[in-house]
Amino acid sequence: MAPAWPDLTGELAFLETLADAARPLALRHFRAGAVPESKTTGSDAEYDPVTAADRDIETRLRTLIAQHRPGDGVLGEEHAPTPSQTGRTFVIDPIDGTRAFIAGLPIWCVLIALSGPDCPVASVIDQPFTGERFLGLNGEAAWLDRGQGRQRIRTRGQAVTRIDDAIISTTDPGLFQGAEADAFASLAGLARVRRYGLDAYGYAALALGGIDLVVESGLKAWDAAALIPVVTGAGGVITDWRGGPCHDGGQVVAAASAALHARALERLTPAAA
Amino acid sequence: MAPAWPDLTGELAFLETLADAARPLALRHFRAGAVPESKTTGSDAEYDPVTAADRDIETRLRTLIAQHRPGDGVLGEEHAPTPSQTGRTFVIDPIDGTRAFIAGLPIWCVLIALSGPDCPVASVIDQPFTGERFLGLNGEAAWLDRGQGRQRIRTRGQAVTRIDDAIISTTDPGLFQGAEADAFASLAGLARVRRYGLDAYGYAALALGGIDLVVESGLKAWDAAALIPVVTGAGGVITDWRGGPCHDGGQVVAAASAALHARALERLTPAAA
Repeated sequence: MAPAWPDLTGELAFLETLADAARPLALRHFRAGAVPESKTTGSDAEYDPVTAADRDIETRLRTLIAQHRPGDGVLGEEHAPTPSQTGRTFVIDPIDGTRAFIAGLPIWCVLIALSGPDCPVASVIDQPFTGERFLGLNGEAAWLDRGQGRQRIRTRGQAVTRIDDAIISTTDPGLFQGAEADAFASLAGLARVRRYGLDAYGYAALALGGIDLVVESGLKAWDAAALIPVVTGAGGVITDWRGGPCHDGGQVVAAASAALHARALERLTPAAA
Repeated sequence: MAPAWPDLTGELAFLETLADAARPLALRHFRAGAVPESKTTGSDAEYDPVTAADRDIETRLRTLIAQHRPGDGVLGEEHAPTPSQTGRTFVIDPIDGTRAFIAGLPIWCVLIALSGPDCPVASVIDQPFTGERFLGLNGEAAWLDRGQGRQRIRTRGQAVTRIDDAIISTTDPGLFQGAEADAFASLAGLARVRRYGLDAYGYAALALGGIDLVVESGLKAWDAAALIPVVTGAGGVITDWRGGPCHDGGQVVAAASAALHARALERLTPAAA
């Protein structure tokens, strides 16, 4: 069944309701310490803050979705998928950037997207500690709300069309292997500035006009879906390394402008999986 | 002349006054956009947000120091040093993490330290966007204040004594050359988790019990001074790669515990400059 989207404003408001519910659950565990003293002391009672936050959030969001959007599907990192009876599916990554979370760095995010059968249509990228909430409607608009109302955000757009003018970001250059590593290195070597250590927050920074090019590999569907409405709503381009849809994850490239995206694909497509 | 420190509480309060003055100046330029469209359009009128923030902050702090601490020295990134007539010197990095600043990421910091002739005694590491203020008294105590009063912070301490239990961080692994690169890679390869993209914020995260080991090279005195009271006040150890004082910058290693620090030195000292 093809979904109808009679009220995308209402859908965005419901995504905000979900993000509001996630915030206190995430913050309860952030910087809560009590990391196990040693890997050898493992026991069932061990407290793992990021796993606890992941589970608490996804469980709560699934309950809210079942109550308010019965029949919609849910795809999340922690539980088995709930099939959609409506053509609509919520795609959830309760804590994106788990390594940032455990290191106490405020650059992890809660990701929630609403997808039709073909692609995500609306999403939220939420950072509970800084209070930054990035919202997007696919190809239409993106906003940042820090608790005082939504403000439209845009990529740097036509201000950056060449790799050597771009600020490039990836999570960890050491995660690329073989041809992927060579392709990334050829872009990073040309770029004006390199930034590492970011997951979804890097795409949010691209939508804000900070970062210009994000290149990653090995993403899951729940890592990728929420990025798309925010990036495209802000005027950016986000695809896989062949220029095709990326909502199932895998190799992803996001750029501030179509021209910059085309330049990046010239170097990435030969290493596309 | 040897300085007297009759009132370190008062000195810490004055460091807070300075950090308060820096905050709005930094935030006025953060995410202010208007990055030059192309490097080829350079003109004197070009707006460079981070340079503007750097200059505004250091100028303002120098004025406040001259008013309230006449005779004290000032060492900062932007202006020529003001010699000390008292044995006391303020060491300022107006915007530490300039690449994070221009990329719109809330992990740059304002660094202000108060040093005697031998070493820094008190410091503040301030993140104006998140409202996080890290304070330290060398070897005594460290605090985090998010606007609701100071809370004591501590490294993970004896919970992490082995490299393979540690979360390691450096700004960019590509900044190390030759033997330095090999030494860092040997540590990073053993560590439990690797984090990149942080400057002073990484040391603040170490003081909070998030990150366990920070390894860097090529620091300046104004990059390094403010790190020392916060790290040592939180129970951590911070030195150069030979285990000596690091307040002049250069190669720096900070660890959550003395045992972890000793393990790190085993691999770093052979590559010490």
